[in-house]
Amino acid sequence: MTGHEKEKKVESFFNPYIKRINVKLAKPSLEDQKDDLSRLIEDLDLDKDTKIPAGLLRTLPDFLERFDYGISCTLRKNEIIDFHEHNAKSRLYGMAVDIGTTTIAAYLFDLQSGKNLDVYSSLNPQRAFGSDVISRINHTITQKDGLTELQGLLVKELNHIIEIFCKKNSINSSDLYEIVVVGNPVIMHLLLGIPCKNIANAPYIPSFTSKMEIKAAELGLNINPEAYLVTLPLISGYIGADTVAAVLACGMAEDDEISLLLDIGTNGEIVLGNREELLSCSTAAGPAFEGVGISFGIGGVDGAIDHVDLKKTPIYTTIGGTAPKGICGSGIVDTVAELLKYKIIDNTGMFSEEYGKKHFILDKKSNIYVTQQDIRQIQLAKAAISAGIKVLVKHMQISLDKIKNVYLAGGFGNYINIESAAIIGLIPPELKKRVKLIGNGAGTGAIMCLLSEDMMKKACLIKDSIRYLELSNLAAFSKKFINGMYF
Amino acid sequence: MTGHEKEKKVESFFNPYIKRINVKLAKPSLEDQKDDLSRLIEDLDLDKDTKIPAGLLRTLPDFLERFDYGISCTLRKNEIIDFHEHNAKSRLYGMAVDIGTTTIAAYLFDLQSGKNLDVYSSLNPQRAFGSDVISRINHTITQKDGLTELQGLLVKELNHIIEIFCKKNSINSSDLYEIVVVGNPVIMHLLLGIPCKNIANAPYIPSFTSKMEIKAAELGLNINPEAYLVTLPLISGYIGADTVAAVLACGMAEDDEISLLLDIGTNGEIVLGNREELLSCSTAAGPAFEGVGISFGIGGVDGAIDHVDLKKTPIYTTIGGTAPKGICGSGIVDTVAELLKYKIIDNTGMFSEEYGKKHFILDKKSNIYVTQQDIRQIQLAKAAISAGIKVLVKHMQISLDKIKNVYLAGGFGNYINIESAAIIGLIPPELKKRVKLIGNGAGTGAIMCLLSEDMMKKACLIKDSIRYLELSNLAAFSKKFINGMYF
Repeated sequence: MTGHEKEKKVESFFNPYIKRINVKLAKPSLEDQKDDLSRLIEDLDLDKDTKIPAGLLRTLPDFLERFDYGISCTLRKNEIIDFHEHNAKSRLYGMAVDIGTTTIAAYLFDLQSGKNLDVYSSLNPQRAFGSDVISRINHTITQKDGLTELQGLLVKELNHIIEIFCKKNSINSSDLYEIVVVGNPVIMHLLLGIPCKNIANAPYIPSFTSKMEIKAAELGLNINPEAYLVTLPLISGYIGADTVAAVLACGMAEDDEISLLLDIGTNGEIVLGNREELLSCSTAAGPAFEGVGISFGIGGVDGAIDHVDLKKTPIYTTIGGTAPKGICGSGIVDTVAELLKYKIIDNTGMFSEEYGKKHFILDKKSNIYVTQQDIRQIQLAKAAISAGIKVLVKHMQISLDKIKNVYLAGGFGNYINIESAAIIGLIPPELKKRVKLIGNGAGTGAIMCLLSEDMMKKACLIKDSIRYLELSNLAAFSKKFINGMYF
Repeated sequence: MTGHEKEKKVESFFNPYIKRINVKLAKPSLEDQKDDLSRLIEDLDLDKDTKIPAGLLRTLPDFLERFDYGISCTLRKNEIIDFHEHNAKSRLYGMAVDIGTTTIAAYLFDLQSGKNLDVYSSLNPQRAFGSDVISRINHTITQKDGLTELQGLLVKELNHIIEIFCKKNSINSSDLYEIVVVGNPVIMHLLLGIPCKNIANAPYIPSFTSKMEIKAAELGLNINPEAYLVTLPLISGYIGADTVAAVLACGMAEDDEISLLLDIGTNGEIVLGNREELLSCSTAAGPAFEGVGISFGIGGVDGAIDHVDLKKTPIYTTIGGTAPKGICGSGIVDTVAELLKYKIIDNTGMFSEEYGKKHFILDKKSNIYVTQQDIRQIQLAKAAISAGIKVLVKHMQISLDKIKNVYLAGGFGNYINIESAAIIGLIPPELKKRVKLIGNGAGTGAIMCLLSEDMMKKACLIKDSIRYLELSNLAAFSKKFINGMYF
């Protein structure tokens, strides 16, 4: 989307549940003795059950007096959360945050204009306790204060981002009124300090899956004292708020046509369906597509080999065009596809007898190559994803050609060569023409919820309508997984 | 009412909004992967939007594990507020408190049986800052931390009562799950720490009048950390939650017949009407009926002259039958009535020429007597009340005989001789046969709300349906007040 298209799209649903209303109240008299709060509520035509925190009500009489009954009232749904003088110049800001296992992406918005003011990304400080969620769960089990510690790290990092946003954009942290957060189930539990130990072992039970709304101050976040942090709902122990947000972002839950959503990261989350039915599963694809566990694997940074074409010279390109430092997810997918195309590996993934070597050199100078073991990692990962897709398709009793859209979400999806993904069998080849890259669908969905009460409601409806298939006890999955190892 | 009748009456509306439900949850499995919270909510058939504080959710997984999915869940409306093991022996308790300007009456209830376990009354520690609400408001205006100070005194006293209740009845303070409080508007503001300074001066505006629900812990009350303190709604700056509770207690808001409620304390609150219309006003009757401002006036304590009959010897009785120490409200009303009956004073309140003295001795030995000034105080007070009644009757465009019940609330109402009250004109003489004493109607109403969600809703409906007449700008009131000075 162009910037202009993006703005037009935001306009179409912009309807935030945080609003500021200016009002000049009639002054009380012996003929009009309404109490201050009722005066405000009636004049603003608010719901009679409008709530107000006691701490804020304590400031109301002075506000009315000081500003001669001209007041600016900040509302969040049916709760009054702040007062300012009439026509106060300060604005309302909100943040959408996608907390990944590895990276955090934060977006700052003006809640009155819907304008995106800033973006910031950083690394999840919990990395120090393991690169995957299981090692973090283990930390909460084995260390007495492990859960509090991991929660504290996220809160500290969010406060750090808040500080940067405020400084860079010259805004006051008390003008930040909402944080909408998405992430996988374990991250959501850790952020709220809620035990997640049962997600680690069968039957993989999360403590909660519903949308949570908590006063940000209660979590120790330095924004407006009456502001909330909202976590979008989860589906199961392995399908999180990030997937719900991505489903919202791609619009598949409102479509008559059937779509397939693939969010490929450390796990591969797959959602299949349309407005009538949504099925999901999570496959332990492993982090190979993120470059992890690959001999020369690195993330999508400058110098990462991101595309490979054996007919070209050099046979690769790198991100940023700099000298190669390693190979990222899209690069390894391309490599395997090319090796298959030129029969350097066979359909079992073995280097062929004709080829006669046990590795494939991508760049001699920097000595970057792909090993048999690397190819096995890719096989495992793509077998998991493709088996997951097949199980969902079978469960829905449809044929592949009924799938009209394939949405690829996640950073990996932005760089991948779809042709290569189809060749290695990560994406069903017959669907390759229907692939659409949606970028960080999780972040986009979080932003949509921040900017629109309707979208927030839709996210909750999506949560209710997605059925989760547990693959670990499905014989059909195991079989499809083994078969899926073939190229 | 006898004890038995009282229990029968409680049964008729007993339906508390705090409940404990025992449930044995199905254990999760790969075929049933619901998250802990959803498992609980669905099994208890609770509303899907049931809330749970984050702090409590953090304990849920351990509870389920420790007690093998047998759990006891304490609910307050649509919020989960506590967990115990299955069939936990501890019970649910609640308190209703009537905080008067002078005295506090607290009632301890078992919320599972509806049984009244204990009663405690103490003096309002704010007395040190003045006997009336105006002097307390002034303290909040003139002293920087005056409001916090007065709030702190009430919170401390409530904690003191909680401690006594818990000790005496061998209950754990964390088993106390709700406190329902009534009181006049100023006391309600002070308890919640909300400014009330505008109640002191015209146009007498309170900061709020709606029912307030606040986490008790937020106020510093030492009961269950997730419990609430609820203040019943107010009507205006001078008609409080105590009056709303008394209207609820006497049932006049549901009656087809028209009733008159008189709550005579420092102020006289008057409510007139039926299920179709309710009118109220507050008259600055002054504290004469509580014995304040009367030469030998004292409260309703042992030794207080409570009844006077000039034909008997001695001409008085005292509370507890002990030697006379002073004269309480009912005693002074009797005295004035007797003085009128025997023409010792005339209809302007003056000691008659025939009588020839300027005071009337009640007891020679202890030298207790009534002065001309004392009679003036009673005249002022009864003139205010009777003018208030007349204004309401006129506003409702009814004749006095349409009033079928006169409910007398407050401690004073329990001792007063109705015949005497009619003679001095405090109660319209034609209604004296219709007087019913309802005791501490405010306390009774608070108890009803503690024990029944329906009653709590009714209290809010009563708040909405009572119209308040401000007497201070009514010429009709001034005229009736002056005329009402005559006996």
